[in-house]
Amino acid sequence: MSFELTKEFIRSVENYINEGNWKKLLEETANLHPVDIADVINELDEDHALAMYKVYNQEQAAEILIELDPEVQEDLVAKLSNEEIASELIDNLDSDDAADLIGNLPEERKSEVITQIEDLEQAKQIVDLLNYPEDTAGGLMAKELVKVNHNWSVMQCVREMRRQAEDIDEVHAVYVVDDENRLLGTLSLKKLLTTSTRTPVKEIFKPKVQSVKASLEGEEVAYVMQKYDLVVVPVVDDLGRLLGRVTFDDIVDVIKEEADRDYQLASGISESVESDDSILRLTRARLPWLLIGLVGGVLVAQIIGLFDIRENLEMALFIPLIAAMGGNVGVQSSAIIVQALANKSVNMPVWTRLTKELGVSLLNGFVCSVILFFGCWVMGYHPDMSFTISLSLLIVIVLAALFGTFVPLTLDRFNIDPAVATGPFITTANDMLGLFIYFTIGKMILGG
Amino acid sequence: MSFELTKEFIRSVENYINEGNWKKLLEETANLHPVDIADVINELDEDHALAMYKVYNQEQAAEILIELDPEVQEDLVAKLSNEEIASELIDNLDSDDAADLIGNLPEERKSEVITQIEDLEQAKQIVDLLNYPEDTAGGLMAKELVKVNHNWSVMQCVREMRRQAEDIDEVHAVYVVDDENRLLGTLSLKKLLTTSTRTPVKEIFKPKVQSVKASLEGEEVAYVMQKYDLVVVPVVDDLGRLLGRVTFDDIVDVIKEEADRDYQLASGISESVESDDSILRLTRARLPWLLIGLVGGVLVAQIIGLFDIRENLEMALFIPLIAAMGGNVGVQSSAIIVQALANKSVNMPVWTRLTKELGVSLLNGFVCSVILFFGCWVMGYHPDMSFTISLSLLIVIVLAALFGTFVPLTLDRFNIDPAVATGPFITTANDMLGLFIYFTIGKMILGG
Repeated sequence: MSFELTKEFIRSVENYINEGNWKKLLEETANLHPVDIADVINELDEDHALAMYKVYNQEQAAEILIELDPEVQEDLVAKLSNEEIASELIDNLDSDDAADLIGNLPEERKSEVITQIEDLEQAKQIVDLLNYPEDTAGGLMAKELVKVNHNWSVMQCVREMRRQAEDIDEVHAVYVVDDENRLLGTLSLKKLLTTSTRTPVKEIFKPKVQSVKASLEGEEVAYVMQKYDLVVVPVVDDLGRLLGRVTFDDIVDVIKEEADRDYQLASGISESVESDDSILRLTRARLPWLLIGLVGGVLVAQIIGLFDIRENLEMALFIPLIAAMGGNVGVQSSAIIVQALANKSVNMPVWTRLTKELGVSLLNGFVCSVILFFGCWVMGYHPDMSFTISLSLLIVIVLAALFGTFVPLTLDRFNIDPAVATGPFITTANDMLGLFIYFTIGKMILGG
Repeated sequence: MSFELTKEFIRSVENYINEGNWKKLLEETANLHPVDIADVINELDEDHALAMYKVYNQEQAAEILIELDPEVQEDLVAKLSNEEIASELIDNLDSDDAADLIGNLPEERKSEVITQIEDLEQAKQIVDLLNYPEDTAGGLMAKELVKVNHNWSVMQCVREMRRQAEDIDEVHAVYVVDDENRLLGTLSLKKLLTTSTRTPVKEIFKPKVQSVKASLEGEEVAYVMQKYDLVVVPVVDDLGRLLGRVTFDDIVDVIKEEADRDYQLASGISESVESDDSILRLTRARLPWLLIGLVGGVLVAQIIGLFDIRENLEMALFIPLIAAMGGNVGVQSSAIIVQALANKSVNMPVWTRLTKELGVSLLNGFVCSVILFFGCWVMGYHPDMSFTISLSLLIVIVLAALFGTFVPLTLDRFNIDPAVATGPFITTANDMLGLFIYFTIGKMILGG
C-alpha cells in the first residue's frame, strides 16, 4: 500500500551505491513510487543522492526530482548541466512543474536553460507561467489540457482530443471554447461516448462551469475548489480566455500550508518551520514571540507592583491561576473565531457573536468560580479571600472571552490575518488585564 | 466567480417565498451552484427552507440537499415521505451520497426507505456501503466507476464504457480488472484514444496503481492521496477486488476536520465545535480544559505556598512572567512535534530530537535571560534579584522545551493522540514545574 521508509532500507541503498551495484539498487526500488524514491534520496548525502538519481531513466528521474525536498532538489539541480535540465528533465515534466523547477534556478541560469529548450511551444508555455506570482491561480496552473471548439462535431472533437492527449497523462475534463478561446463550458466524457459522432458540440456541452481568474490567490482557489467539490478548475484571464487548469493535488499543499501556518501562529511560531530545520532557523522563528512575552511579563510585574501585596500575601498564591485561566479562555475564544473566519462561516454580526460569547463565558465562569469558591473555603481560606479569588476569576473569564472574540474580528476587519491574534499575544494581554482586575478587587474586598 | 451570500439576498428570497412568487425565486437563483442555494436554505427557518427546496426539479433538489448543514438536512428530510426519498432523491445521487443520506435517517426509517428503492442494483450498492464504518475508505467511497476487463479489446472497452458512463457524471479513471474483479491497473484516456481499436487492453494498460483497502481509516486515505498526488484512488477488499473509488473532494473534509480538530485541541477545546453551535454545546466543549486549568491553578498555589514569599516580596511580581514564558515555550515545542507527527516527518530518534530542542531552547533562553537581567538591573532591581529571575527563566525555558517535546513523542508512542498534549495541559504542568524552580532558586540565591 503505502511505503514505510526505514533506516535499514536507507543503509542498504547506501551500500549498493558504494559498491556501484546499480542493478540491485534498481531492483530493490523497482516497485516504489517516484514519491517514495524521492523520500529515500532526501535522506542521502549530496554525492549519494546524485548517484542514485542518475540510476533512473529520464522519465522516472523527472518525476523523482520534482518530489524532492527543496534544498535537496536545489543541490542536485546545481550539479546538472543546462542541457541536461533543458532536454532531459523539462521534456518529461508537466508545464507547471517545469516552470516551478526553472523558477527555482539562480537568476542567471534561468534564461540559459530556457533558450536550450528545443520545443518552442513548451518554452513559451514555461515563460508564460513564470510571469504569474507563485501563489496565484496562474502560478499554480498547468498548461496541459484538452479543449475543443463549440463549432466542432463530436467526431472532430475525438480526433482533436487524440492529438492533444499525446502530451497529456491524465484527462480530467474536456473544455469547450469559442473561436476567441473564451471558456464556454465543459464536455463530459459521458456525452462524448454516448452521442452520435455527427452531433455538434454546441448541442451537448454543459455551459455552466466554475472557473477562477489567473490573478486569484492560491488560498481563494483552494476555497472555491473545496466549496464546489472540484478536482480540477479551469483558469481564465480577465477576458474569460482559457489559460490553463489547476488540479486538486496542486492545491492540497496550499491548504496544508495554511492550516499549518495558523496552527504555528497560534502556538507562537512566527516563521513557517519544520521540525528538521536548523537550530538557528528554529530559534529565529520562536524568539519574536518569546520577546513579546518577556516584555509582557515585565509589564505585568509593573502592574502587580502598583498594589501592595504585603497586605494580602495569600493573593500572590493565586496569581498563576488567574493568569492561566484568563489565557486559556482567551485562546479558546479566539481559536473559535479564527476558524470561523478561515471557513468563511462568519455571517453573524459582531454584536450577536459577542453576546453569544458572553453567554458561554458566563456559564463557564460561573461553574469555575463556584467550584473555586467552595474549594478555597474547604482548604481553609477566609471567605473574603475565597470570594475575592472566585469573583475575580468570573470577571477575568468573561473579559478574556470577549477580548478573545473581539480582537480577531477587529483584525480581520482591517485585513490583518487574525491567526496572529491568538497565542502568546492574547495570553500576555489577558495576563495584564486579568491581574489588574484581580488586585483591584482584592483591594476593594480585603482592603490594603 | 464565487457567490457572496448577503443578508439582503436572504431577505429577498424570504419575500418571494412569502408572496409565493416561485418564478422570480427560480430566476434569481438560476445561476447559482447547488452549494450556494444550500447556503441560502441553511439561513432560512424550517418552513421557508422546505418551500424553497420544493421549487427545484428532482436533480437540482438532490444536489442541494446533500450540501445542506446536517441539522437543516435532517429537519428537511423528516418532512419528506419515504417514497419521495427513495424515488426522487436517491435516484439522483451518487451511491456515496445516497448511503450517507440513508445512514443519517432514524433507524426505523432506514429499511423502509431502502425497500422502496426501485432499482435493485442501486439498493444493493447502498446496503453494501452502509456496512462500512463512516470514516474508512469503504465509508467514503462511491460505487460509480468505469472498469474494463484486461482481456477485452479497445473496441469492447469503448462500448462497455459507453454503457457504464450512462450512470456516471464524471470519469476520472478507467480501471482494469481480471475475471475475478481483481484490480490490475488503469487505462489512460490517452491510450484509449491513441491506440487502434483492436489492441487488447492487456497490452496498453498501466499495471502500477495505488489503491487503498476498504478498512483503511479516512485520515490514512487522505495521507496516501496527498502523498502520491492522487485525485481519485480505487478501493479494494482484502483479496484485491475492486469495490469503489474515493475522489479528492470526499477526502478534503477529512483533512479539514483533522486540521481543525488539532487546532481546537491545542486551544483547549475538547469537542469538535463550530462558532454557530449552541451556547450549551460550546460551553460543554470548553469547560473540561478550564476545570483542568482550575485544578492546576490550585496546585500551583500550593506549590508557591511551600515557600515564604514574605522574605522576597519582589519575587511575586515576576510569577506571571515565569509562568507565561514556560507556557509559551512548551506550546511552541509541542506544536512543532505535533505537526511533525501529523505529517509523518518524524524519523529522527527521540534523543536527537531532544538534543536539538536543547540547542534551540538554550539559545532562546540565553537571549531572553540576558535581556531580562539587564532590563531588571536598569529598572533598579538588586543584582541578586535580577540574577534570580533570569537564571530561573533560562532553566524554565529549557525544561519547558524538553517537556513540550518529550510529552507528545511519548503519547504518540503509546498511540494516544499527541494533539491532546498541547494547549492548557502543557501550560498548567509547566506552571507548576516552572514556579517550583523559580522559588527554589530564589531561596538559594536570596535566602529566606
